[in-house]
Amino acid sequence: MRSLYGGIEAGGTKFVCAVGTCPDDVSAEVRFATTTPSETIGRTIDFFRERPEPLTAIGIGSFGPLDLNPDSPTYGYITTTTKTGWTNTNFAGVLQEALNVPVLLDTDVNAAALGEHKWGVAQGLDTFIYLTVGTGIGGGGMVNGHLIHGLSHPEMGHVYIPHDPVRDPYPGCCLYHGDCLEGLACGPAIEERWGQPPETLPADHSAWRLEARYLALGLVNIIFALSPQRVIIGGGVLQQESLLPMVRKNVHELIHDFVPVPPLSNDTDSYIVLPALGQKAGVLGAIALAQQAISLP
Amino acid sequence: MRSLYGGIEAGGTKFVCAVGTCPDDVSAEVRFATTTPSETIGRTIDFFRERPEPLTAIGIGSFGPLDLNPDSPTYGYITTTTKTGWTNTNFAGVLQEALNVPVLLDTDVNAAALGEHKWGVAQGLDTFIYLTVGTGIGGGGMVNGHLIHGLSHPEMGHVYIPHDPVRDPYPGCCLYHGDCLEGLACGPAIEERWGQPPETLPADHSAWRLEARYLALGLVNIIFALSPQRVIIGGGVLQQESLLPMVRKNVHELIHDFVPVPPLSNDTDSYIVLPALGQKAGVLGAIALAQQAISLP
Repeated sequence: MRSLYGGIEAGGTKFVCAVGTCPDDVSAEVRFATTTPSETIGRTIDFFRERPEPLTAIGIGSFGPLDLNPDSPTYGYITTTTKTGWTNTNFAGVLQEALNVPVLLDTDVNAAALGEHKWGVAQGLDTFIYLTVGTGIGGGGMVNGHLIHGLSHPEMGHVYIPHDPVRDPYPGCCLYHGDCLEGLACGPAIEERWGQPPETLPADHSAWRLEARYLALGLVNIIFALSPQRVIIGGGVLQQESLLPMVRKNVHELIHDFVPVPPLSNDTDSYIVLPALGQKAGVLGAIALAQQAISLP
Repeated sequence: MRSLYGGIEAGGTKFVCAVGTCPDDVSAEVRFATTTPSETIGRTIDFFRERPEPLTAIGIGSFGPLDLNPDSPTYGYITTTTKTGWTNTNFAGVLQEALNVPVLLDTDVNAAALGEHKWGVAQGLDTFIYLTVGTGIGGGGMVNGHLIHGLSHPEMGHVYIPHDPVRDPYPGCCLYHGDCLEGLACGPAIEERWGQPPETLPADHSAWRLEARYLALGLVNIIFALSPQRVIIGGGVLQQESLLPMVRKNVHELIHDFVPVPPLSNDTDSYIVLPALGQKAGVLGAIALAQQAISLP
C-alpha cells in the first residue's frame, strides 16, 4: 500500500488541509476560516477522519510562535501568539491523539522552506533562508541540511534594523518591538504609513524604495548571521514586481563586496529568488514535514 | 601510537602554534608576531616540522574572511582581508602540501565555538553562537550540531543595528559598512569615540551603557535569526566586568518576552555566558578542528 500524507497549512486567517505525496499529487483539499481553536482543530480532525485511505503521517506548517522543544511540557503548542483565543493551544498533541498517526509541527516558514528544498528553488542546497512578507514577516530555512531549530524556532521577521525617523517618521507596528523589520515593513505597516493598501500603490511609488531598503537591511542581517547559499523571499507584498529587483540592488550595496563569493558579487538575481511552489507552498511544505515525521529518529 | 594534533591560532597580530589532544594536554606552544604571509606561514611550517612525534592532523582557527567553499578554486585562502599583504593568501593548501597531513581551516570564532562545544560551556548543545568583541567583532557557532557554514562563513560582527546619531554622533569605523555592529562597538570604536582605550574607562562610565546596548542589539538579531540555546560572548572588551550584566539586561528588554522559553524569560545569566577556555580557547579550538579534520567524510 502506498504511503499517503496529510498536510495542514495553519494560518491566522485560514486553514488549508489536504492529502498527497508531491506537487503533482495533492488531493481532497479543503479550506476554512481560522475561528476558535476547538472549532478549527475540530474541523481539521473531521477532514482527516473522513479520508477513505489511512494516512502515514501528518505535517503542520503553522503560524506561531510555537514550542518546538521536545523536552518542554508544552511541546507542540502555539504559545504567545497575539491571535485572540489561541494563546497556549495544544495543537500537535491533540491531532496526534485524535488521529493516531505521527504528527510533525513546525512554523509555516520552515515548512515552506522544506517544500522548496524538496521540490522547488532550494533543491540541492544545504544552507538557505526563506522569508515571507505579508500580514507579518516570518523567516525559516536550513543550515547544514536541517531545518533551523535551537532553543525554539527563528523569529527572523523581528530583527532590529536602522530606522531613520527623519526619512520615515512611521513608528512601526510590531506589538512587541515597535520598529523591528516586521514593524516597519509588513503589509499593515505599508498600509498605515501611506494610507492605502500595498496592492493599490503604483510600481513607481516611493513606498517601494523604502520597503526595498528595509527588506534588504533585514536580509543582510540574516545573511551575515547564517551565510546562506540562497535567499528565498515570498509573500503577498512581493506581488509588487518592482520590489524584488530593488531588494537585490540594496542587498548588494549593503554587503558592499564584503562577502567575496561569486553569487553575491556578480549574480544577486539567482541569489535572491521567489519561491517556486506558489499557492501550494503551504500545504506542500506541510506534506514534506509529514514525510519527515516518519524518517526522523 | 597515540594521535597528536597540531593547532594554529592565526590572529591578525600574533600566531600561536601548539600540539596536543585536549585542555590538559597542550605542549610545545610557540607564539610569534604576524608579519608577511611567507615569513609567518614559514615559521609555522618550521615549528611543526621540528616536532619529534608525527602529527595526525592540523587545525587552523584564522582571521578572515576565508574561502571555505570546497568547490571554489581559492578554497582554504584568506580572501578580502584588510590586513596588508594577506589578501588572497593560500593558507590551508600551503600547509597541507608542506607538512603532508590533513589540514582543516575555519574562522577563529568557529574554531573557538568548537572548542567550547567539546570542552567548555557549549557541551551538550547543538545550536549556539560564539561572539568575540575585541579589535573587531566576529561570530560563529553551531546549528544542529554542525559549525555554521553556507555560502562561506558567518560575518555576525557586521549586522546592521539601529544607531541614533543624536545620542551617539560617532559615525562608526567599519571600512566596509560604517556603523554596523563592529563599526559601532569594537574596541577601536570605543577608543575613538571616548578618546581613551576601553581598559582605561571606569566601570560606571556611560561608554559601557552604550556598548551594552549595541552588543545586545547585535545579539538579539542573531538570536532571532538562529534561535540559539546559548550565547557565548568573549574577547578583550568583555574584560570590563560591568559590561556582561548590562548586555544581559538589554537583551532581555529588547526581546520583550517574545521568545517564551525559560532560559530567556527567567535566566539570562545562564543564557549569555563568558567562554570557559580563556586564554587557551584559540589554540584548543584549532586542536578540536584538527580532530574534526580526520573524522569528516
